[in-house]
Amino acid sequence: MNWRERRYSSELSLKDVGQTIEMSGWVDTIRDHGQVLFIHLRDKQGVVQMVFDPNVDAECAKQGAALHSEYAITVKGEVKERADEAKNPNLPTGDIELQISEVTVHSTSKTVPFMITEKSQVDEESAEFNVDEDIRLTYRYLDLRRISMQKNLLRRHEIVQSIRSILNEKSFIDVETPILTKSTPEGARDYLVPSRVHEHKFYALPQSPQLFKQLLMISGMDRYYQITRCFRDEDLRPNRQPEFTQLDLEASFIDESFVYELLETIMIRLFKEQRNVDLSSGFPQITYADCLDQYGNDRPDLRFDMTLVNVTEACNGVSYKIFQSIIDNGGLIKGINLKGKSSELSKSYLQEEIAKKTAAKIGVRGISWMRIEDGKLQSNIVQFFSEEQQANLIKQMNGENGDVLFFIADTNHGTVNDALGRLRLILGEQHGLINKDDVKPCWVIDFPLFEKKEGRLHSLHHPFTQPKGDISKMTDDEISSVNARAYDLVINGEEVGGGSIRIHDSSEQKKIFELLGLSADDIEQKFGFFVNALQYGTPPHGGLAIGIDRLVCILTQNASIREVIAFPKNRVAACPLTQAPDYVSADQLEELSIKQTALKEVEA
Amino acid sequence: MNWRERRYSSELSLKDVGQTIEMSGWVDTIRDHGQVLFIHLRDKQGVVQMVFDPNVDAECAKQGAALHSEYAITVKGEVKERADEAKNPNLPTGDIELQISEVTVHSTSKTVPFMITEKSQVDEESAEFNVDEDIRLTYRYLDLRRISMQKNLLRRHEIVQSIRSILNEKSFIDVETPILTKSTPEGARDYLVPSRVHEHKFYALPQSPQLFKQLLMISGMDRYYQITRCFRDEDLRPNRQPEFTQLDLEASFIDESFVYELLETIMIRLFKEQRNVDLSSGFPQITYADCLDQYGNDRPDLRFDMTLVNVTEACNGVSYKIFQSIIDNGGLIKGINLKGKSSELSKSYLQEEIAKKTAAKIGVRGISWMRIEDGKLQSNIVQFFSEEQQANLIKQMNGENGDVLFFIADTNHGTVNDALGRLRLILGEQHGLINKDDVKPCWVIDFPLFEKKEGRLHSLHHPFTQPKGDISKMTDDEISSVNARAYDLVINGEEVGGGSIRIHDSSEQKKIFELLGLSADDIEQKFGFFVNALQYGTPPHGGLAIGIDRLVCILTQNASIREVIAFPKNRVAACPLTQAPDYVSADQLEELSIKQTALKEVEA
Repeated sequence: MNWRERRYSSELSLKDVGQTIEMSGWVDTIRDHGQVLFIHLRDKQGVVQMVFDPNVDAECAKQGAALHSEYAITVKGEVKERADEAKNPNLPTGDIELQISEVTVHSTSKTVPFMITEKSQVDEESAEFNVDEDIRLTYRYLDLRRISMQKNLLRRHEIVQSIRSILNEKSFIDVETPILTKSTPEGARDYLVPSRVHEHKFYALPQSPQLFKQLLMISGMDRYYQITRCFRDEDLRPNRQPEFTQLDLEASFIDESFVYELLETIMIRLFKEQRNVDLSSGFPQITYADCLDQYGNDRPDLRFDMTLVNVTEACNGVSYKIFQSIIDNGGLIKGINLKGKSSELSKSYLQEEIAKKTAAKIGVRGISWMRIEDGKLQSNIVQFFSEEQQANLIKQMNGENGDVLFFIADTNHGTVNDALGRLRLILGEQHGLINKDDVKPCWVIDFPLFEKKEGRLHSLHHPFTQPKGDISKMTDDEISSVNARAYDLVINGEEVGGGSIRIHDSSEQKKIFELLGLSADDIEQKFGFFVNALQYGTPPHGGLAIGIDRLVCILTQNASIREVIAFPKNRVAACPLTQAPDYVSADQLEELSIKQTALKEVEA
Repeated sequence: MNWRERRYSSELSLKDVGQTIEMSGWVDTIRDHGQVLFIHLRDKQGVVQMVFDPNVDAECAKQGAALHSEYAITVKGEVKERADEAKNPNLPTGDIELQISEVTVHSTSKTVPFMITEKSQVDEESAEFNVDEDIRLTYRYLDLRRISMQKNLLRRHEIVQSIRSILNEKSFIDVETPILTKSTPEGARDYLVPSRVHEHKFYALPQSPQLFKQLLMISGMDRYYQITRCFRDEDLRPNRQPEFTQLDLEASFIDESFVYELLETIMIRLFKEQRNVDLSSGFPQITYADCLDQYGNDRPDLRFDMTLVNVTEACNGVSYKIFQSIIDNGGLIKGINLKGKSSELSKSYLQEEIAKKTAAKIGVRGISWMRIEDGKLQSNIVQFFSEEQQANLIKQMNGENGDVLFFIADTNHGTVNDALGRLRLILGEQHGLINKDDVKPCWVIDFPLFEKKEGRLHSLHHPFTQPKGDISKMTDDEISSVNARAYDLVINGEEVGGGSIRIHDSSEQKKIFELLGLSADDIEQKFGFFVNALQYGTPPHGGLAIGIDRLVCILTQNASIREVIAFPKNRVAACPLTQAPDYVSADQLEELSIKQTALKEVEA
């Protein structure tokens, strides 16, 4: 083994025929063609066919026969052109093979718990890798040998490097902020770290570097970024990780347009490099209100239309009691139009699948549907609509023959938007309205600064977001409905990141804390150092954070973030490979001056 | 304020004269010359002089008069050439000034707790910044406004980017490994993180990604790197941080020469870029044994000679009882030669300062000294040495007239080496033998695999280091003194990093664990998953880790790592700015199923 001589499969082609080369890697598939043995050697992201022919080298063929799957080996051999009929156009190295003259086995392998087959490597698209995820994670070191996983990590690396290179070029400085720090006010639970030296005190792991990046702006750092780990002790959700990676950035003396242009530059480059998709700058900007109104949520999937239409007025006066009663109680009725699909949808699909099952899934009592045929509505409830009402509804819904309309009605307007927004996505998915290769980004803007829960104001983003307008001149009512200088970047219905222009005035910041119901003591205890810092010449500043795991998923078209993280936790925030978290010794706890309380429940 | 129009001080020069430009930054020094006001505007890493002249613009001059230190402002003004006598060659923008026509104050500033003066910015070398460190850290956002601190963070950014760019070029892939993980076996204490979901279990923060990077090699990742945070809950030491940043890398199918060449490439580039020092590849390689023998420790400072000389033989037979008794008891006597300094050193310096005070500091009872004059030794003990013995000693010590020799004798050989090694550094420092601009790197190699403490074997590096040679064929005695395939990179007497070629054979790994006294249960519980992983075709692999904080210190010639970390902890592992670590609520502890035990001691 001589690393200077080593060649990789990705480098080899017909131009190398006749050369004797050295390669290192793993034994992949083994095929025994009578006497001659064909073995694939797998290295970084590729395979090469090795030939062991006893008629050429009997000794070496014997060594070849002793090889088994996943042995780590180094070989020497001559690059040969394959016979025409043996060429494999599906394999990058399919024109050549290696006539092996020397084999070194560095280490053998036990039988692997699942196959790391060439098939899944050469043709990722078709090959489903359907091994149980906990098994995959227990043997992650084998799972990562699969070429698709190798490529995922390589592409993640490339994506992060591209982001860095753009930011470096634009004079952003990568500054590291603490991991052992104080609780951050992001709303989720903090992971705590007991301090041994400072008895009974705890560090907290950061949910984001929010306060530190704002302090860096106060420090005059001008343009900061960091690709950093963040931590949230959330209740378990399938596509969440207790730790995740965030691109965090902030700049001073800027406004929203700076952030939009910067992020668009990054996204245009990444989607070109990773998916060969050409995006144009000037991503659409949609207000939060319009998002809710047209898409039912603040993460609009713009890959297809079928926007939500308010038909409350159009339905007023119909003799359908459910609708009328909802209207009379101040409710909302909205519809979507699944264009031209009527002939494909059976009555039982509409009545059972959608109106009952899907309705239950999206949390509403029912979904009304109507086909449009011969310029008229057809459904189990059209008898409650006059001809004029029907014509009006068709017009409102921009209906044509062959369309199917779906309606949701509820006294709770939020329920209508949320449910119909989900129905839109389900129908879009089920009926092929979504082109998976499309990329449709947008900025969601004009978020409210606050949301009201149980009569109290809460920050929709976080309490450092600047209100739109001077709240010192507003009434409390005006303030409670003021918009924020916040923005989210949404791509294909997924929130990729978000940020805001921040408050740079300490009295405004204090006022916001007061509106959120924090006492003077709370403010001092939690944010005193920060409010103090704001009083020393804080520049106007703003920024954003992007979830790298999710962004990589979108760029690589993986469904789960666990496919783009080397060693993810499983669905219950544990690592099947290392068995973390784990019990620790009584000594360790004693050193930390803590002890365990009785178990809250019997462990499974 | 329009970010598109903004200019930075670093861009401005005579070529801009006549242009009206916009700048943003902070009010720095203010000088009132009669009616005309000269104010420095400070932005990223520089200042520009603003002129407010009431004869030019009375209204604006009034606004200028209302400015105070550290206000955050945006100004418009015309770039003017300064009068010749007003030009300041010490300032990059010293040829020009801005005739201000418009001022916007974004935010005012309270009086700062310490001055952020131009002086300390323009002339870093001479200006001592002697503010108490805890004050600096409490107001870190102001401390970081100093141009020297801005430059430190910028240079850290540049250093890390250069490292990344070399590694990316060489096909290393940046892979993130978990922060919430299992205890790592690095010898120090782990920081623990209680799991709320898995009651009574704990994550540990990694002391290094050692096992994960080895798993990545087993995964076939081939070349991995990461610039990542590591954590050690150590007892307090002045130049340590509970969290630190490490360049961690690993490669497969390689040997030591691969690591040496790679790291030398990195160091050559960094020292050229950051200090304009030309290093040559092929750093000297010094064995651990030679290091101890010649420098008294394994971190040789090669910027000066004065190596340790063993004179035990040469002293055998002298009538000086202390020496003879030490020799008779198997002890060691070694000396160093401070060349040509005799005339500069008073007897009281030798007798009081060195032989007593310094001896106490370096942990020995005494230091013997001898001047060489007229070819003979002079000291308070030469009477115990015959002429022949003196001549022999002078020869051994390569002595000449005007030299001063220092000797340390002890029955404990380690004490002699350690103490004389320190004395060498102290004398080198005190007598100007060290050129602070010199850069002398070396590799320390051939470390023993084990050290013996209290009759038990301990890994000198860590238990994954490969022994030199096949231990399955060695006796236990041979094994206990076998060398390791480990290496440290040492620059100017500081250990910058270290690594090794790792064990890739699971039975060898098990054997090492057994030699370290781990029971089969221990091995299974702590490392079972790893020993198992080794059995699936592990490639030969190795790597290294570099402490980024310290490396940046050396490259930027800062004495303390706290000067190159944005938000460091202080000497007691706390953050004076955020007050981390801090008390948490009883609710938080209850959720984590832990409670505090009684305090171990009364808190200060």
